[in-house]
Amino acid sequence: EAGLSTRSMASKTPVGFIGLGNMGTPMARNLLKNGYPVIATDVFPESCKELSVPVMDTPADVAEKADRIITMLPSSPNVLEVYTGPNGILKKVKKGTLLIDSSTIDPAVSKEMAIAAEKMGAVFMDAPVSGGVGAASMAKLTFMVGGVEEEYHAAQELLTCMGANVVYCGQVGTGQAAKICNNMLLAIGMIGTAETMNLGIRLGLDPKLLAKILNMSSGRCWSSDTYNPVPGVMEGVPSGNNYQGGFGTTLMAKDLGLAQSTATNTKTPIPLGSLAHQIFRVMCSRGYANKDFSSVFQFLREEEGQ
Amino acid sequence: EAGLSTRSMASKTPVGFIGLGNMGTPMARNLLKNGYPVIATDVFPESCKELSVPVMDTPADVAEKADRIITMLPSSPNVLEVYTGPNGILKKVKKGTLLIDSSTIDPAVSKEMAIAAEKMGAVFMDAPVSGGVGAASMAKLTFMVGGVEEEYHAAQELLTCMGANVVYCGQVGTGQAAKICNNMLLAIGMIGTAETMNLGIRLGLDPKLLAKILNMSSGRCWSSDTYNPVPGVMEGVPSGNNYQGGFGTTLMAKDLGLAQSTATNTKTPIPLGSLAHQIFRVMCSRGYANKDFSSVFQFLREEEGQ
Amino acid sequence: EAGLSTRSMASKTPVGFIGLGNMGTPMARNLLKNGYPVIATDVFPESCKELSVPVMDTPADVAEKADRIITMLPSSPNVLEVYTGPNGILKKVKKGTLLIDSSTIDPAVSKEMAIAAEKMGAVFMDAPVSGGVGAASMAKLTFMVGGVEEEYHAAQELLTCMGANVVYCGQVGTGQAAKICNNMLLAIGMIGTAETMNLGIRLGLDPKLLAKILNMSSGRCWSSDTYNPVPGVMEGVPSGNNYQGGFGTTLMAKDLGLAQSTATNTKTPIPLGSLAHQIFRVMCSRGYANKDFSSVFQFLREEEGQ
Amino acid sequence: EAGLSTRSMASKTPVGFIGLGNMGTPMARNLLKNGYPVIATDVFPESCKELSVPVMDTPADVAEKADRIITMLPSSPNVLEVYTGPNGILKKVKKGTLLIDSSTIDPAVSKEMAIAAEKMGAVFMDAPVSGGVGAASMAKLTFMVGGVEEEYHAAQELLTCMGANVVYCGQVGTGQAAKICNNMLLAIGMIGTAETMNLGIRLGLDPKLLAKILNMSSGRCWSSDTYNPVPGVMEGVPSGNNYQGGFGTTLMAKDLGLAQSTATNTKTPIPLGSLAHQIFRVMCSRGYANKDFSSVFQFLREEEGQ
Repeated sequence: EAGLSTRSMASKTPVGFIGLGNMGTPMARNLLKNGYPVIATDVFPESCKELSVPVMDTPADVAEKADRIITMLPSSPNVLEVYTGPNGILKKVKKGTLLIDSSTIDPAVSKEMAIAAEKMGAVFMDAPVSGGVGAASMAKLTFMVGGVEEEYHAAQELLTCMGANVVYCGQVGTGQAAKICNNMLLAIGMIGTAETMNLGIRLGLDPKLLAKILNMSSGRCWSSDTYNPVPGVMEGVPSGNNYQGGFGTTLMAKDLGLAQSTATNTKTPIPLGSLAHQIFRVMCSRGYANKDFSSVFQFLREEEGQ
Repeated sequence: EAGLSTRSMASKTPVGFIGLGNMGTPMARNLLKNGYPVIATDVFPESCKELSVPVMDTPADVAEKADRIITMLPSSPNVLEVYTGPNGILKKVKKGTLLIDSSTIDPAVSKEMAIAAEKMGAVFMDAPVSGGVGAASMAKLTFMVGGVEEEYHAAQELLTCMGANVVYCGQVGTGQAAKICNNMLLAIGMIGTAETMNLGIRLGLDPKLLAKILNMSSGRCWSSDTYNPVPGVMEGVPSGNNYQGGFGTTLMAKDLGLAQSTATNTKTPIPLGSLAHQIFRVMCSRGYANKDFSSVFQFLREEEGQ
Repeated sequence: EAGLSTRSMASKTPVGFIGLGNMGTPMARNLLKNGYPVIATDVFPESCKELSVPVMDTPADVAEKADRIITMLPSSPNVLEVYTGPNGILKKVKKGTLLIDSSTIDPAVSKEMAIAAEKMGAVFMDAPVSGGVGAASMAKLTFMVGGVEEEYHAAQELLTCMGANVVYCGQVGTGQAAKICNNMLLAIGMIGTAETMNLGIRLGLDPKLLAKILNMSSGRCWSSDTYNPVPGVMEGVPSGNNYQGGFGTTLMAKDLGLAQSTATNTKTPIPLGSLAHQIFRVMCSRGYANKDFSSVFQFLREEEGQ
Repeated sequence: EAGLSTRSMASKTPVGFIGLGNMGTPMARNLLKNGYPVIATDVFPESCKELSVPVMDTPADVAEKADRIITMLPSSPNVLEVYTGPNGILKKVKKGTLLIDSSTIDPAVSKEMAIAAEKMGAVFMDAPVSGGVGAASMAKLTFMVGGVEEEYHAAQELLTCMGANVVYCGQVGTGQAAKICNNMLLAIGMIGTAETMNLGIRLGLDPKLLAKILNMSSGRCWSSDTYNPVPGVMEGVPSGNNYQGGFGTTLMAKDLGLAQSTATNTKTPIPLGSLAHQIFRVMCSRGYANKDFSSVFQFLREEEGQ
């Protein structure tokens, strides 16, 4: 425990950052801006060039030099490789190291990693984010954090450099759980809003008026009042820009796959969540993979000329 | 048109009210409170006793004496009977009479009634309500109004006595459309919230904390932040009272049946709306008919002892 | 009743046929082949040219001359018009006339027509068909017949000229009910087969082998063993011909709309039937309206190059 | 390869059997009946008492003495433990041993086991079964086998002692794939049949007649013609015995969980399969876990007295 207390900016020990993709790069930059020395690695070394920081060859090399490491990776298999692979963090992790995984993955994998880390005397926390590349650049992400409570403040110190909200959710895996739950309800609300707006329009309602009525009534949700999927109802959202940018359908399908897996594993019925998963999955097959997920409105709407 | 302009409180002509059920009675009482003379009828004459107003035998008799008539009935067949039946309003309706139907019915029936009324020189508007018995008593209902715009002010004069919000939605039938759309999205949001809260709890999250996280994030909806279905998360909602009171599952299933019919008739896909309909329908078969519709949380949750 | 007994070929009274579309024309031709004199009408008079039979101006004119009339129309509103419209059959129907409706419509409309016919002293039976244009040409249709039992033999006499199977289902409307039920289960089986074959292929199974295994096991259904939706598994089915011909997605969506309506009206939960309806409805919006309904395999499958 | 060819009854080397539950015990008994010496183990040693065979302490001990081993276990974690656990088969497996896993598990786990076995010079095949305890007793199971083709005959020699059909499906994992696919389509067909029969009954059709019509038409499936879920339609099926016996809802939910996982992992849309999964999952929560899966008819049907 003594070791843990020495982790701080004052220690001058660098913070390790593994995974410099679209999200990881601006996150690491915000650590630098806050005065933390950073060392990094990525499976694609060229990804590291954008940041002027020492680049290590492997996660194990990062673990040798850092006592706080943040990982930001695409999916569960990458996390398994980076932590427990032949050149993984756990091969050379120092006792007392704080490991923070901001990837969105299956909470069961987070729990596995926590157990494996504990065996090496290190501490693993899951801290997935809500918010996209823009929020990452502006340090406006929301972090949902799971792990042992006594380490939360140490994690918070770093995460507040990269995000506007840091929420402690409970034991390890609950950060992932919160993220997955939010995105499942978001997906349901978005498809529901798209169906509802489409039905209303077909029944003769003006879309702006319908949105206004829903938003002052019990149908109100984030997708209707903040991110409306119908072109022309709202400004500054992907529906006004041919569904460019935003949160891709393929990413939403991935998160719903995680919701599905956790629900299957815990024998929890999620009828609408499952159907939402299937709908976004079909959309990925039909050319909507890289459009914002609000393009479900376009997918459900009758094609022109029919 | 001259006839229409004479419709006003000053005319002393009574306002007719047909349908004195749980909702109609407090609505009619609020008209009386605002100084409007009221005459009434109901298929169950004893329903009229609670109000001290002249009781007519049939809708036709009401139509003979009133030049503004409000109807508040359970479903489409009742509306057809009251307007076009052998003793219906249209048998004796006076030219220029304003007919306001606050029932929640198929907008196609509203359109039919408007055409039939027009043939008799009368004007029909649909004005379904959002809000329950409590809102009806306190004159806090929301009215969604469809019909010719030039008659809207005449309708508004009466409706503001009974409600806090009166919204003009467009041509006849659009009031129903707005009501149906709102309730469909409400149903989807409620089931989605119930699934999500249940999944989160199973994954180890505290329900109050999960609700808080959703409500500050993109999963937020009316069912999560105002009417949470999980006992203990929120006060003053049916989930805290064993799902007594509120909006019965059977009523929600009825409204979703209307959404389904209008969607089928307009060939509009509503995948989540349809599934929500089916879920509430199964719940009605399994003993949840008279519980608040947020009891879907209880329906989806594992039974005790399993 | 005496009047009824005189209805027979010997009477030389012509059989009326209303609705000479793709199905009606070959059906009427098979009546002619069996020696029945036919008179006909259609909203598009040119449709009658293909058959060398006397053409009447309106359904009422047909009713004046025939004592057995068969109707074959696209949907409920057409049936309402042809029977109860201003120039409809019931305007001039003769007492004792047998009216057989082979359209696929809402059984509630069939019941309405039966009541209206009975008031005029005529008998109405519903007798929708299973089988397409090919079966109609070869007199291989299946008729599902609803109506009073004592008239069934009179109906059967005519229907056996046009079909290979005639099944008496019970009271009026049950013919429609049987048709709707069959097509709903067919739709569910087809989508299920398409999903299953697609999943198996993705998991490395040869499609022909998978079909063989299913067909010797409990997964077997008509769509897997007689009308497999995967190109190359089976010969002589639309999947082998780019989903040309067969039973169009738009027709299946129409029948599922009827299933949905009857289920909504009888408060019967049909979760898979509803979802099947929504899937075919989305397909209609995405360019599959005129392909055979087994093209759902193509709709669900990943696009080439993804 | 020489080593492999010596595996045969003549070798007198015993066949190992691991997992003596409801299915495994009669399967092992059928091996004995066919003259194969058997040695066995189970996590519950008392399970082995019913068979008069030598009982080993651990799977590793079985592997030390047998050159053909059959495993029949409840789920993926059990298979992982029995093969790769600290006392697992692979700790002491002999080169050339044939490992046949008849458990129903995720095909990805089967592939993992095959790779691990290969490293030890052994051969792993997946051979899940279709058929219940009765079929196991009467040696009437169907085996779906995946694995290297040259070893298939060696597997077939044993499997034909326990089953009536042995089908070679392709590379390792395809046996599981075939099993999962069949059961998914079975689940969809069963729920579809239950919905359809219920709808038809509500529309006035006699259930026996409706079943007859479906079974001569395109709605036909195994659940309608061989295992009808409506009491009284058919004899000798669980619906005639208050849904006792047969294939439990909880087992079907487990298999659909596997279908869901493989579909999620391969990004394959299975809209009806997913919804079927959710419906059986809700049923498990509502008291139907141990009833035959055809009890979905009872679940969907209106309760008495409503």
